[in-house]
Amino acid sequence: MTDSRLMPPVIPRIMKAVELTDYGSWESGLRVVEKDVPTPRNGEVLVRIAAAPINPVDLAFIHGIYGVKKELPVVPGFEGTGVVVAVGGGMLGRFLYGKRVACGAPDGGDGTWAEYMVTEARRCVPLAKKVSVEQGATMLINPMTARILVRQVTGGKHRAFIQTAAAGAVGRMIASLAVRFGVPGIHLVRRTEQVEFLRSRGAANVLCTNDPDFGDKLNVLCRDLRPTIAFDAVAGDMTERLLRALPRGGKVVVYGSLSLKNCRITPGRFIFEKKSIEGFWLVDWIRDTPFRHQLRLALGLQKFLANELKTEIRKHVPLADARHGIAEYVQNMTAGKVLLVNET
Amino acid sequence: MTDSRLMPPVIPRIMKAVELTDYGSWESGLRVVEKDVPTPRNGEVLVRIAAAPINPVDLAFIHGIYGVKKELPVVPGFEGTGVVVAVGGGMLGRFLYGKRVACGAPDGGDGTWAEYMVTEARRCVPLAKKVSVEQGATMLINPMTARILVRQVTGGKHRAFIQTAAAGAVGRMIASLAVRFGVPGIHLVRRTEQVEFLRSRGAANVLCTNDPDFGDKLNVLCRDLRPTIAFDAVAGDMTERLLRALPRGGKVVVYGSLSLKNCRITPGRFIFEKKSIEGFWLVDWIRDTPFRHQLRLALGLQKFLANELKTEIRKHVPLADARHGIAEYVQNMTAGKVLLVNET
Repeated sequence: MTDSRLMPPVIPRIMKAVELTDYGSWESGLRVVEKDVPTPRNGEVLVRIAAAPINPVDLAFIHGIYGVKKELPVVPGFEGTGVVVAVGGGMLGRFLYGKRVACGAPDGGDGTWAEYMVTEARRCVPLAKKVSVEQGATMLINPMTARILVRQVTGGKHRAFIQTAAAGAVGRMIASLAVRFGVPGIHLVRRTEQVEFLRSRGAANVLCTNDPDFGDKLNVLCRDLRPTIAFDAVAGDMTERLLRALPRGGKVVVYGSLSLKNCRITPGRFIFEKKSIEGFWLVDWIRDTPFRHQLRLALGLQKFLANELKTEIRKHVPLADARHGIAEYVQNMTAGKVLLVNET
Repeated sequence: MTDSRLMPPVIPRIMKAVELTDYGSWESGLRVVEKDVPTPRNGEVLVRIAAAPINPVDLAFIHGIYGVKKELPVVPGFEGTGVVVAVGGGMLGRFLYGKRVACGAPDGGDGTWAEYMVTEARRCVPLAKKVSVEQGATMLINPMTARILVRQVTGGKHRAFIQTAAAGAVGRMIASLAVRFGVPGIHLVRRTEQVEFLRSRGAANVLCTNDPDFGDKLNVLCRDLRPTIAFDAVAGDMTERLLRALPRGGKVVVYGSLSLKNCRITPGRFIFEKKSIEGFWLVDWIRDTPFRHQLRLALGLQKFLANELKTEIRKHVPLADARHGIAEYVQNMTAGKVLLVNET
């Protein structure tokens, strides 16, 4: 084993990467190619990627229905983990040199589904020793989102919160973090077996939206806990349902639209009940939040990655087999993440 | 003529009033009755009502579809004008004694469609000499709303605004005030002739939503003026249309629902475009705003009542003929207000 800080790693000229040539289906738009290893400019670093997950946002991006579109061809992959092996200049980059990092893709360019990626140094977070490659690779999207949303409850002086899709990847993290921090939450799931699953993680107030008494039970919990904010990953009719359940002045934060349907809202909720709807998107949060705050949060959440913020990983797939990996992931997106890994 | 401050007015024991006995239609639920003149308690005043308008909110209240419900039977009428003829105690009440005031109904009790009304002293605003009975009677709802919304533009550091129903009672006031204060606005109307009407009042950017090029014209104006807030009195599909037109981060404030339809919103507007929806209701504003701010605003807007904030009055109807007045008003609600007046 060599210490990369003493002995600079050998960086090849050519690398393997997954490339998107057309927005649409991953079957037709994706291929594995060889391309030049990019060179970092000032403020940027070169990361040798160890692993990168296939996330729902990647699929939405490939389908061309995500909030971000990049010039084609482009390497997908919004997050990953690896080692900083070259620096284009800048104090932060030099600090990161040789370190294991969790890394996010740059705004405009190639992403993490490759052997190497150039990104801004400020898109990298050094990893604590005990954070595994798996948890580091999946840290910057779901765990960050969960952490930020739970902070919105406490930071916004909300007494309690409601969340939908509570058994989903982000929802279960929100539920566990809230238990850890003692923040009262009402967790909505769609299937009965998910109620037990969340209870086993310590969540007290879990309701199944298909329960015939759902409405009554929700009203009772809202009366007791007085939640004033709701996180909605479902949209469609659920947004109105949440607005209705919240007391006067309540706010729904939409951060996903799993129902694939438009929100339908009674105007009186806004006018007479002083309720409001806004959105949350991690990309905006990153753009609008001072870097030192982001870094503090990303460093702080690493101690929860083995428990409250743990991502289930179901398979490692070599980068060259990316298309097989995606095929397996889309068959059952709630059975754990598929990681694209580099064997080098 | 006697000066009421020197010679206390004679207050009768019995008065005429319009009474609502059932929520539903005004034809069946309203009657003119005789009842005791109420007595003000501490902090309250007795106003001898000179005139009170029939407003859309009164009709919504009578139909039981307004954000406020009172115990029945009750006297309707949310605003009016008159003279303070008795005081239950309190410094403000004593200051108001003998003065002409614009007055709002108390939260729970009888309103302005009567010869006398008891209300909190803080619901009364002394009128400047040149403010007519007609303009004083209609000052506290529409002109206040217009003034507050235009202030939201400037106070919220918004560069410009969009508004719907711009030819309506409040909309035309917003348009004229914005012209007066040099606040750029984009004014949406439904009928071609309303475009000319608003232009004649000095509004530059008036668009007809039925114009086949409406979308393109709206986009051009939004690109030039960069409005970041929109006031929506229509709801339904219009709310989404406004959200779409606003740039990233834009906010729609719903303050009416003339379309009588639910808002249908694409969730991506919240998530990816950082847009939000909230509401405005004068009742909440009054509850949440310190009294001295309310008073300053209500005193300050009186100089605009003869021009920018002028309410069109089409008819005076004696209180005893209230039902005829309503019948006439509902036949054409945009042809000017009907005032219920007391001849005494």
